[in-house]
Amino acid sequence: IENRDRKTLRDLCQDLHNADLADLIEQLDQERRTQLIQLLGRDFDFAVLTEVDDTVREQILEALPVAAVAAGLRDLDSDDAVYILEDLADQEQEEILARIPEFVRVRLRRSLDYPEETAGRRMQSDVIAVPPFWDVGRTIDYMRESDDLPDEFYELIVVDPSFRPVGTVPLNRLLRTKRPVRIDEIMDTPIRTIRGDLDQEEAARIFERYNLVSAAIVDDSNRLVGVIHHDDIIDVIEEEAEEDIRGLVGLGDEEISDNFLYTARSRFPWLFINLWTAMLAASVIGLFDESLEKMVALAVLMPIVASMGGNAGTQTMTVTVRALATRELGGFNKRRIFWRELLVALLNGVTLAILIGIIAALWFSNAELGGVIGAALVFNLLVAGSAGFVVPVLLDRFGADPAVASSVFLTTVTDVVGFFAFLGLATLLLL
Amino acid sequence: IENRDRKTLRDLCQDLHNADLADLIEQLDQERRTQLIQLLGRDFDFAVLTEVDDTVREQILEALPVAAVAAGLRDLDSDDAVYILEDLADQEQEEILARIPEFVRVRLRRSLDYPEETAGRRMQSDVIAVPPFWDVGRTIDYMRESDDLPDEFYELIVVDPSFRPVGTVPLNRLLRTKRPVRIDEIMDTPIRTIRGDLDQEEAARIFERYNLVSAAIVDDSNRLVGVIHHDDIIDVIEEEAEEDIRGLVGLGDEEISDNFLYTARSRFPWLFINLWTAMLAASVIGLFDESLEKMVALAVLMPIVASMGGNAGTQTMTVTVRALATRELGGFNKRRIFWRELLVALLNGVTLAILIGIIAALWFSNAELGGVIGAALVFNLLVAGSAGFVVPVLLDRFGADPAVASSVFLTTVTDVVGFFAFLGLATLLLL
Repeated sequence: IENRDRKTLRDLCQDLHNADLADLIEQLDQERRTQLIQLLGRDFDFAVLTEVDDTVREQILEALPVAAVAAGLRDLDSDDAVYILEDLADQEQEEILARIPEFVRVRLRRSLDYPEETAGRRMQSDVIAVPPFWDVGRTIDYMRESDDLPDEFYELIVVDPSFRPVGTVPLNRLLRTKRPVRIDEIMDTPIRTIRGDLDQEEAARIFERYNLVSAAIVDDSNRLVGVIHHDDIIDVIEEEAEEDIRGLVGLGDEEISDNFLYTARSRFPWLFINLWTAMLAASVIGLFDESLEKMVALAVLMPIVASMGGNAGTQTMTVTVRALATRELGGFNKRRIFWRELLVALLNGVTLAILIGIIAALWFSNAELGGVIGAALVFNLLVAGSAGFVVPVLLDRFGADPAVASSVFLTTVTDVVGFFAFLGLATLLLL
Repeated sequence: IENRDRKTLRDLCQDLHNADLADLIEQLDQERRTQLIQLLGRDFDFAVLTEVDDTVREQILEALPVAAVAAGLRDLDSDDAVYILEDLADQEQEEILARIPEFVRVRLRRSLDYPEETAGRRMQSDVIAVPPFWDVGRTIDYMRESDDLPDEFYELIVVDPSFRPVGTVPLNRLLRTKRPVRIDEIMDTPIRTIRGDLDQEEAARIFERYNLVSAAIVDDSNRLVGVIHHDDIIDVIEEEAEEDIRGLVGLGDEEISDNFLYTARSRFPWLFINLWTAMLAASVIGLFDESLEKMVALAVLMPIVASMGGNAGTQTMTVTVRALATRELGGFNKRRIFWRELLVALLNGVTLAILIGIIAALWFSNAELGGVIGAALVFNLLVAGSAGFVVPVLLDRFGADPAVASSVFLTTVTDVVGFFAFLGLATLLLL
């Protein structure tokens, strides 16, 4: 298809939804991607680029001439344009912005001035705002006459003379109200505005909590600067959940389309840190080399204690990390949850200890060995339960992201304590 | 506040948004919760119950008289009513349904007939559907006159005479079009309908992919039965991401408000399974007890090989599980990703092997031991990389949820292979 047959290509792509065209582009090789976009020319909707993954997008933008990118971005909704621009280097951003008409440029810059991952970055700057004293008829006439309205909106934002939002009117209510009724009689108050510099994750929590379809974004002095829609929020929620999952196992921001060199490099730091923590655990074992020489059963059993501690601790840690992320864990229930986790650890620890104690005693025909491994297991599970709770809570308090750093700390603790408790107890009691 | 002062209470709660009132209810003890709801009587909006967590909701519903629950549910949107009903036992459901007016009951039953976690369960049955031959004016008049429209909607669904959806009209377009224009001239086609029995996660992918604000739900013969909104989809996405995270560490559907007994019981099965896999790994070590007796350094170093394999494998597994869940991994790129994971494992494996080899050689003044641990590490990382990819892909193909079961398999593989490769090589080459 790709052999310069513009017309057929255009017809084919016209029928595709952006998301489907994006999939198609991802599956082409790099050269073909640029060819396709250039062949489509003005018929290529740059909104498609918001649907391909980051790595592919960067490649495409680098390959296209600056003028083509600028022309493509000019017609986009401002949130899509910002989404595409934000990953570019500063210099390229400037070159592209320079070729965009001034009134669009000003808006894009205002979004780009907000830090990454804030609500301001995700907002759309074309907003429909009406004063409270208009009536329904005038509002509808205004909407019919103006040409530059955004494609999608679900609510009107009502603003006072200094452009501060005072309420919202869902479109369906506007439709169902008679023309002479004043806007301020049908608007919903109080309005839930979101500050542009609010973290996008916090903004998502507000949407979720109040089931919003869109929300007004305001600046420091509470003036309306944009609006953020449900579909952007869905993307944010997906991204943030993804980040939590990745953080737990030390993955960076890799994408499925990255090559192996990039992937290997992004995963290495985590493995490197884990190498040292594993070494630390090994050196704890090294302290007991004489005991191990005397009783090789200890070497056989010791990984069980460490690994059970790791598993139980990870369960507690995961619950805690997610509860912190979704703001379910606050000052008022911290103490209760901590005690619950200790009780859970004790209960499961004792049950599993009895089980493993019996098995170990039978396996090595040594009842005392069974007692020792049982005791070590209970102890390690208690430590794992506390650490699984305390580590993320402390990291959160000191401003670190608990999802990323918790599990290194945690497995170090459970390994070191597991080996030390089991080998130490055995040395004291059995040898 | 709780001492029977109805009026003050009512005034206080009236100003609260449902989500805030829900938080308040969660923080009360069980007795107070029921008291509060009963005192509020008809002023209590049962939609609040959709915002409290599952455990709390069940307690409240059990404590309230059936008649009160039925009265409360009658006025709710059907998706909220179903959400509250679905967790109840069949018998209680029937008792409540029996007290609800027939036309509402029929709708609720239709939703409840769909299996759990399908789009049909989440749909709202009050839909606004118009025929394509109406004009804009007639449509607006119809909407002004009918009283029983749902509170929130963002699009009209256009249906043919047999009630099959043929297109949608966003409200903002309706507002901006002149009254004599026919609906079928302004509607968006083709319409993306969702079958009621589609898994809710699949439905969420469709929303996300096409940035929808609502979608028509159809039955087997493609007739319109309801509509599903963005806010329900946001909840679904949150839940499914949560499920993936929990699955990776063997957590069930516990909630932060559960008591320790319930929590301990829900976490036990995972730990129990892990006990047996740890035992399996231990018995592999047991095979080499003579080697360990001769050379205690092996016992010190062996956990390093196993734990590095576990970490690297978990990274690959997590990427694979998420890519399967978000449908980024399909037939066309499976082979490529598999090879990439192997290359990543090789690259990081060799780098880490050199490092650990040198350290081990220096630590125990034994160059050959360094070589052995390095070789075992490379081998285990290669196995971990393959298993981290293959295990979730196979589980997915056989219809199991890869998020839940993958990590048990994986850590068993990396432990067993890690111990076996290291101790086996050492026995062959060093002793």
